[in-house]
Amino acid sequence: MKAAYYRGNRVVEIADAEPVSPGIGEVRIEVAYCGICGTDLHIFHGSMDKRVKVPQILGHEVSGVVKEVGENVSDYSPGDRVVVCPLDSRGELASDRGFSHICKNLKFLGIDSPGGLQGSWTVPSGTLYKVPDGLDLKLAALAEPLAVACHDVRRGRVSNGELVIVLGGGPIGLLVALVAKKSGARVILSEVNEHRLKVAKELGLESANPMETDLRMLCEHASGGAGADVVFEVSGSKSAVASMTGLLGIRGRLVVVAIHPQPVEINLFDFFWKELEMLGARVYESADYEAALQLLGDTTLPFEKMITRVEPIENVPEIFQTLESHPDTMKILIDCKGAE
Amino acid sequence: MKAAYYRGNRVVEIADAEPVSPGIGEVRIEVAYCGICGTDLHIFHGSMDKRVKVPQILGHEVSGVVKEVGENVSDYSPGDRVVVCPLDSRGELASDRGFSHICKNLKFLGIDSPGGLQGSWTVPSGTLYKVPDGLDLKLAALAEPLAVACHDVRRGRVSNGELVIVLGGGPIGLLVALVAKKSGARVILSEVNEHRLKVAKELGLESANPMETDLRMLCEHASGGAGADVVFEVSGSKSAVASMTGLLGIRGRLVVVAIHPQPVEINLFDFFWKELEMLGARVYESADYEAALQLLGDTTLPFEKMITRVEPIENVPEIFQTLESHPDTMKILIDCKGAE
Repeated sequence: MKAAYYRGNRVVEIADAEPVSPGIGEVRIEVAYCGICGTDLHIFHGSMDKRVKVPQILGHEVSGVVKEVGENVSDYSPGDRVVVCPLDSRGELASDRGFSHICKNLKFLGIDSPGGLQGSWTVPSGTLYKVPDGLDLKLAALAEPLAVACHDVRRGRVSNGELVIVLGGGPIGLLVALVAKKSGARVILSEVNEHRLKVAKELGLESANPMETDLRMLCEHASGGAGADVVFEVSGSKSAVASMTGLLGIRGRLVVVAIHPQPVEINLFDFFWKELEMLGARVYESADYEAALQLLGDTTLPFEKMITRVEPIENVPEIFQTLESHPDTMKILIDCKGAE
Repeated sequence: MKAAYYRGNRVVEIADAEPVSPGIGEVRIEVAYCGICGTDLHIFHGSMDKRVKVPQILGHEVSGVVKEVGENVSDYSPGDRVVVCPLDSRGELASDRGFSHICKNLKFLGIDSPGGLQGSWTVPSGTLYKVPDGLDLKLAALAEPLAVACHDVRRGRVSNGELVIVLGGGPIGLLVALVAKKSGARVILSEVNEHRLKVAKELGLESANPMETDLRMLCEHASGGAGADVVFEVSGSKSAVASMTGLLGIRGRLVVVAIHPQPVEINLFDFFWKELEMLGARVYESADYEAALQLLGDTTLPFEKMITRVEPIENVPEIFQTLESHPDTMKILIDCKGAE
């Protein structure tokens, strides 16, 4: 069968791989769709070369169908439609304080072990969630990024009637905005790229370009002078970080979603003055996967518009080469059904 | 009567003042003791000249005795022993979301209006708390800085058995350490100044000099590899801010107590990786004043050792000139009883 391997030096190529028989507690699935995500691009760019051993099969946003189950697997049978939560927490320690999703020995499938950009993927059964009846496997492949968004919104304790600002309109920013809006908040997405602003509009999101609109004034006006309740930093930009504390009102919450590899200057005076709260958010917990699968079944939410297009696995190398020059591309799904 | 006026340009001088008759809802107290605090020094250094109108009577850490009550004051009578919570929240708005202690129109007594370094002080009755029977008025004058510490520890949700690191061993840092320890945490105070480390030892606190001890290793050892549960940044130093996220374990909390006037570089990768939480903390709420007064009555806590000495009001100008060159001086109380 075919698989998409990262080989280092900005090379991703398609090569043969052997299906892996499921061991004890493992399940082999036939991969239906696998999304390409920002982390895959980071790997492609070499930013994670210290962590990723080459050659490595990429991909961790997977929907599929159970093909074969190993010993001691009672929850799944061949034919079950599933998504994969790509966290392997089997190395969890007591010192992780029960937070298995970010435990020190966490292994991330598709980074630390082979991923899902292949025809057949063998994973621990504990990583699987059943896809609700009637939910298309294309939409189901959005469960992973949507679980990220659900986790972020949950970390931010977004509630009905609040004013929420999302800084950055890439795929995760858009999903955070949709989930926060579904929670009953008024959500304003801040994004500088006109292509992405167009996608936001198509998704029914209120948005603003901070190069043209004074975001702080907008927050003041939208809140009767109180300021925003929650800000999500999903842009990774220094200017967004510099502005974020100024948008918030008293006791406002700030969720740091973007990865900032280097220390960044933050206005701590605002933290003191308004008693702000900043929360780091990383991956997801069970509740987030369950919430994501439920939301994907909500036909009032336009998740299908997040899928820019579906491509065959043969096109993966070219997609990696061209993706970053197309900021209006949201989610590309790879159809892996033909890869087996 | 005498009062200590800030006149700008690093000048504090003693001059005459007239007692102010209490208006509606106001109370005039005879000031017993007034502590000198870091904020008073900031004012003296001109750092708050934009806010402080000169001449201004300084001082906001006051204990005293009610002398006269205005109309509509039913809770207090002459002779009552009281402390003052120097927050005037009468300008609170709906957009302050109920957080009156940090409302936008907050006026701070002794900064925005005359303070307590005088023989007689007239304040809104809502700022008063009764001093429990048997509690000395000297110790009671510590209620204000202790309420700051109680607020900080409450913001950090410190609980029994947790590992707490306090960065900075000035008066507030020491009080935060004492309150966190009383909450059942193991507390390690980090301080570079040997004089302050000596005071910490006298207060029965565990401490470390980060120039000599690897604080991160200390946290790892003290927690079985888990890292600290809560870090209080009370130092105001950039190096402390640079190190603070590294001390914390998964989902650790960081309380920013020190005032950082300029943006400071923070390791946001640690926030993401460990899902950290950072909380700004400013002044106090009613619960903190009540907790502080209760703690001051706890004879197992060595608060009296925080009082370096008691001085007459005439010495205030000299104290301001020399205080910053004596880092081992913790709290100087001004005896204002002779000032009337």
